[in-house]
Amino acid sequence: MAEITISIEEYRKVLEEKLRIRGVSEEEARQIAGIFATNAADRVISHSILRTVRMLNNYSTGIIVPGRMPQKVSGFRAVERYDANCTNGVVAASFCMNRACDLAQEYGLGMVALRHANHWMRGGYYGWLAADRGKVGICWTNTRKNMPSWGSAEANTGNNPFIMAVPGTDGAHFVLDSAQAQFSYGKLEVTRKAGKLLPVDGGYDEEGNITRDPAAIEKTKRPLPAGFWKGSGMSVLLDAAAALLSDGDNTMKAEEYIVENKVDECDLCQVFIAIDPEALGENRFREVEKSIKDAIHNAKPVTEGATPRYPGEKIRGYREDAEKNGISVPADAWEKILAV
Amino acid sequence: MAEITISIEEYRKVLEEKLRIRGVSEEEARQIAGIFATNAADRVISHSILRTVRMLNNYSTGIIVPGRMPQKVSGFRAVERYDANCTNGVVAASFCMNRACDLAQEYGLGMVALRHANHWMRGGYYGWLAADRGKVGICWTNTRKNMPSWGSAEANTGNNPFIMAVPGTDGAHFVLDSAQAQFSYGKLEVTRKAGKLLPVDGGYDEEGNITRDPAAIEKTKRPLPAGFWKGSGMSVLLDAAAALLSDGDNTMKAEEYIVENKVDECDLCQVFIAIDPEALGENRFREVEKSIKDAIHNAKPVTEGATPRYPGEKIRGYREDAEKNGISVPADAWEKILAV
Repeated sequence: MAEITISIEEYRKVLEEKLRIRGVSEEEARQIAGIFATNAADRVISHSILRTVRMLNNYSTGIIVPGRMPQKVSGFRAVERYDANCTNGVVAASFCMNRACDLAQEYGLGMVALRHANHWMRGGYYGWLAADRGKVGICWTNTRKNMPSWGSAEANTGNNPFIMAVPGTDGAHFVLDSAQAQFSYGKLEVTRKAGKLLPVDGGYDEEGNITRDPAAIEKTKRPLPAGFWKGSGMSVLLDAAAALLSDGDNTMKAEEYIVENKVDECDLCQVFIAIDPEALGENRFREVEKSIKDAIHNAKPVTEGATPRYPGEKIRGYREDAEKNGISVPADAWEKILAV
Repeated sequence: MAEITISIEEYRKVLEEKLRIRGVSEEEARQIAGIFATNAADRVISHSILRTVRMLNNYSTGIIVPGRMPQKVSGFRAVERYDANCTNGVVAASFCMNRACDLAQEYGLGMVALRHANHWMRGGYYGWLAADRGKVGICWTNTRKNMPSWGSAEANTGNNPFIMAVPGTDGAHFVLDSAQAQFSYGKLEVTRKAGKLLPVDGGYDEEGNITRDPAAIEKTKRPLPAGFWKGSGMSVLLDAAAALLSDGDNTMKAEEYIVENKVDECDLCQVFIAIDPEALGENRFREVEKSIKDAIHNAKPVTEGATPRYPGEKIRGYREDAEKNGISVPADAWEKILAV
């Protein structure tokens, strides 16, 4: 597949323009395009470049409405519940994590639960947001039906990404962004488009055999949960907790809504938790942080010469590189963005 | 290996007696023995029967002192930090989750971070505790060094169990209790003692080959993280967050302390979060709960005739069965408990 190099600035500008045409205000367009551009710079192409057209088309079907913001449903001290109210998914999720950080500032920790949400694209973005504000951030979303729970031969739960972030010194944060399938659909798509196989078993093909072929798994919607029963269990708990706390729809109900209304992934539930370490006084975390990072960097590597990384470590390098050298994207995906 | 059947009541009474001999008060002994007995009834033999002697011996080395309770280090509204102060691990963890539930009652959610903690045995117990109080419970612990992070050939992180609980109708809670290794050391021990192999690949042997032999993995301390890089990343984040929030030691520092002082696993950090769904008003969770449970029970199973279960589902049946018929335990483990 042909790749071309574009600058982050170019992507940002093109996306802003496409959003403005759809009635999005200058300020909101700048915010949305900025988040998509950051995700692209961080090399999460699957949830930026490859999802841009779908996001823009959601203004036509009405599941995203320009100028909307999440509406508060209820709240009690450190917890709040919102309805996403057709807000662009990245705007709503940023609002909620920021609000959780505000609550953490006031109470030591805070939680915001969001229902009827559109896709938030890359969950890791909101982990970085919390860590940049000096907070421990935890957030997750349910998804449409796309993974079988352990022991099931058909998709009956979501891959429900879970994000955790711990602020590090000088912005060198620990950030984990992990769906409950061994591979996200974004990763399957990127691997398929690159004509490659997955590095480890990823799911089942139509004959029920374990496979590393991403296209086969996209077809059966039978990706393996990460850690088999473990990722499956995590998925079920995240779905239940998100639906309970937001008073929203679980994966199976969201799927019904999506199919009935013939719309893109929506009606999701998301939970955002922020904890303020400063609220508990002094800590010796610089020492701990060094110990954890050293233990990863200095351990004997499995592959000679390789240096294992902590979660989130590579991102800052990617970001610098992207600002300087642009990003490499599939040519056809870029053409589709220009044409939409 | 010969198995014998003992009654839960017998285990509870024997353990109470052994604790009383070590200077533990009647009330505290009843609490500790009750938790170990519940874990045994729930068939978590690895963190009850098989760990009883080790726990009792920790009164001799002084890492557990009778009558102690966690001491508050600092607090701000909905967050509190404690030092475990040589409290028995199951007492300290129960105290902290109860305290997090109290804070959730007051603020909508609450967090308690504990440092210098002894082993809490089975983390799932504290998830059940929160769910029985109607709260969403999240908790985790770091551990001593027992797992290589992804790409590392030697143990440099812990398997750091993560627990999540969502209260279900009539006590039918969703409870996940999941270490970040594909198999916990407890499970490796139980499988080895049963003379069996693991159901999927579990780690590396001394030659660096992937194996299902539990004894080989216990030897190399190279269990596979659940989901490879995913469980590895989760482990690092849980360690960092626990050490930051409790101002305690990360896995590598705890390991140093343990080795230097020649003591059982201790100096751990634990985090307990409770969220009160009631604080946000009414919800339609009964409907959601049914949808999630139905989707699991009614999906086409991989193995014909099998009925997949949601996390925690089997526990209540185990508990009833244990009260009625007792529990099956390795004969030698029971003899060692009687002799200690």
